[in-house]
Amino acid sequence: MRKISGNTFLSDPPKQLVLEKGFRFHHGQTIAPFTIVYETFGELNAEKSNAILVCHALSPSAHAAGKYTGAQDEKPGWWDGLVGYGKGVDLDCFFVVCVNFPGSPYGTTSPASIDPRTNKPYGSRYPWPAVEDMVHAEKVVLDHLGITHLRSIVGGSLGGMQVLLWCACHPGMADSIVAMSTGAAVPVEGVAWHVIGRKIIEADPRFRGGDYYDGTEPLRGLEVARMVGHMTYLSTHALQTKFGRRRRANTRQFEIDSYFEHQGKKFATIYDANSYVRVQAAMDEMDLEEQYGSLQSAFRSWRGRTLLISFDTDWLFPPEESESVVGAMRSLGIDAHHLRLMSNNGHDSFLIDYDLITPPVREFLSRL
Amino acid sequence: MRKISGNTFLSDPPKQLVLEKGFRFHHGQTIAPFTIVYETFGELNAEKSNAILVCHALSPSAHAAGKYTGAQDEKPGWWDGLVGYGKGVDLDCFFVVCVNFPGSPYGTTSPASIDPRTNKPYGSRYPWPAVEDMVHAEKVVLDHLGITHLRSIVGGSLGGMQVLLWCACHPGMADSIVAMSTGAAVPVEGVAWHVIGRKIIEADPRFRGGDYYDGTEPLRGLEVARMVGHMTYLSTHALQTKFGRRRRANTRQFEIDSYFEHQGKKFATIYDANSYVRVQAAMDEMDLEEQYGSLQSAFRSWRGRTLLISFDTDWLFPPEESESVVGAMRSLGIDAHHLRLMSNNGHDSFLIDYDLITPPVREFLSRL
Repeated sequence: MRKISGNTFLSDPPKQLVLEKGFRFHHGQTIAPFTIVYETFGELNAEKSNAILVCHALSPSAHAAGKYTGAQDEKPGWWDGLVGYGKGVDLDCFFVVCVNFPGSPYGTTSPASIDPRTNKPYGSRYPWPAVEDMVHAEKVVLDHLGITHLRSIVGGSLGGMQVLLWCACHPGMADSIVAMSTGAAVPVEGVAWHVIGRKIIEADPRFRGGDYYDGTEPLRGLEVARMVGHMTYLSTHALQTKFGRRRRANTRQFEIDSYFEHQGKKFATIYDANSYVRVQAAMDEMDLEEQYGSLQSAFRSWRGRTLLISFDTDWLFPPEESESVVGAMRSLGIDAHHLRLMSNNGHDSFLIDYDLITPPVREFLSRL
Repeated sequence: MRKISGNTFLSDPPKQLVLEKGFRFHHGQTIAPFTIVYETFGELNAEKSNAILVCHALSPSAHAAGKYTGAQDEKPGWWDGLVGYGKGVDLDCFFVVCVNFPGSPYGTTSPASIDPRTNKPYGSRYPWPAVEDMVHAEKVVLDHLGITHLRSIVGGSLGGMQVLLWCACHPGMADSIVAMSTGAAVPVEGVAWHVIGRKIIEADPRFRGGDYYDGTEPLRGLEVARMVGHMTYLSTHALQTKFGRRRRANTRQFEIDSYFEHQGKKFATIYDANSYVRVQAAMDEMDLEEQYGSLQSAFRSWRGRTLLISFDTDWLFPPEESESVVGAMRSLGIDAHHLRLMSNNGHDSFLIDYDLITPPVREFLSRL
């Protein structure tokens, strides 16, 4: 790995960990063999004591930062604004691991992967993963790398939900966590939109319950469901200033309509409908309060330093969701802080507002 | 018409006005013959000087109040809480007219009506109405009834948009208006959800561009689009208190999911998909600022007393939309007032919170 021009760097290609005995999902099913794809960034020190786990959200992959090939890569990894040399998660100090979680279509065995027993994609037979499976896959990779302790676990949105679940499942693993734009459960508004999105996909006759891989066209249901998802990421202010009621030049089509079509089509060519319905359902199912009886019970063994970051215009995970997590932790004597930031970028602020999040994250990690 | 037990009354059956020469739509097409269905409530006085026009919204019909048959009617008309003897719009004083507008499926010639030239439903060949057509149909009925002047024009949501358009198109017609949960244009968030709803319906292969009347099953696309619509009517508070993250007893299904399925299926059996896409598109197309250059220009000839009522949790038409209408009117010297009410019922507050809206409406109309 070497730094390249600008403030990005050449990243290693994705790595594969093949579990010949398979991966046992939280709800009981096993897929064997099972491949987990992950990437690492920076250098692991001799004591293996400088590792940070970065957890990705619904749409990204394990490619958190850097470019594989330099100029040919159109874009660097999805969190290149935060993870890099001299950045918020500073690769001059830390070794970063990012694992593509089960259910995601970016390399790890997924619904679109070929089942060696049938030579067909798993499709509808792929298990419905839980966030526990995401955490479990991350743990398996860390074990494989011989990393028994983490300096921190960092993520946003569904990535942040994994971070919180880590505190509950493996409270001794990390010195600290940083969770952004997230909560201990998706509030009802998000659940409602996710449920509608799944119904849109399931109503697409070409979806056929998830066994659609003999088709080549992207699914219209996934395109439209993604538009619903997009709405939950945008703030009212962004909608008003970026689009308002404006029309495309010389047409009556609303600009927001044209934008949705573009985003929906783009997403449906790179993402997989079976993954989409499963990953969103996993988000909706996680509920630390329900699963542990209370947030206090969920975090009763966690002792690490904690930073939650929320954004005032995020209506998928409003700041109150972070506040209740931090409140529960503080009642347990945990050194937990909630940074509530102002941004017009809604839920996606954690992927956009690097000027806002870099200083507090850098300072938080430097004090470990 | 006579009062029956409780605080409702027996209403007359719907009336039909058949336009043999047809109805010419705002965008140029004509359907002939064309039937307009309307209802009247209370007694028109000899001078024909006590009439109030009530404009209905997307889902209701001309049946604004009362019961047709008494106890057999499960429910009274859609605004029975406001319109009746001794109520906010008091039938002891006023004669109320409500017209089923073109595009709606409740009696007036609609996409589901049989085209006498083909003996098949109009389907995809039915014009895309504008809010101007709704106002025009109302004007045609009033002309037919010999009513040349109105004491007031009253409506909520799309009904309120018609009310505002009346001020622009026929500024001399009424002494006053009352418009609730509305605005001079649908803000971008509402447009975005409407656009997504239309895409959901259009993606249903059984919709076939609007020519689906040989099928008997309700369209799944309409069911799911209605769920999207429902989300825009509910407040966050209502979602949290009515549903939260609760599951149906002994299942993992979220209660909000079960509620959506119930509402979607109920709506798709009584409403028509061609009507839904057309009426929502008409809402989205109306934009008094765009059409008249400014709100001041739109209301430049209006002189009547004006009451706008908004609700703090309505995010389809937030109170700012009423405020900008009233602000424009006041800058023209119009006697315009904006009453901003607090309710947890979101956009639908105008159909629910009769304790809040009855006193100001009653007082406003009594001072005419």
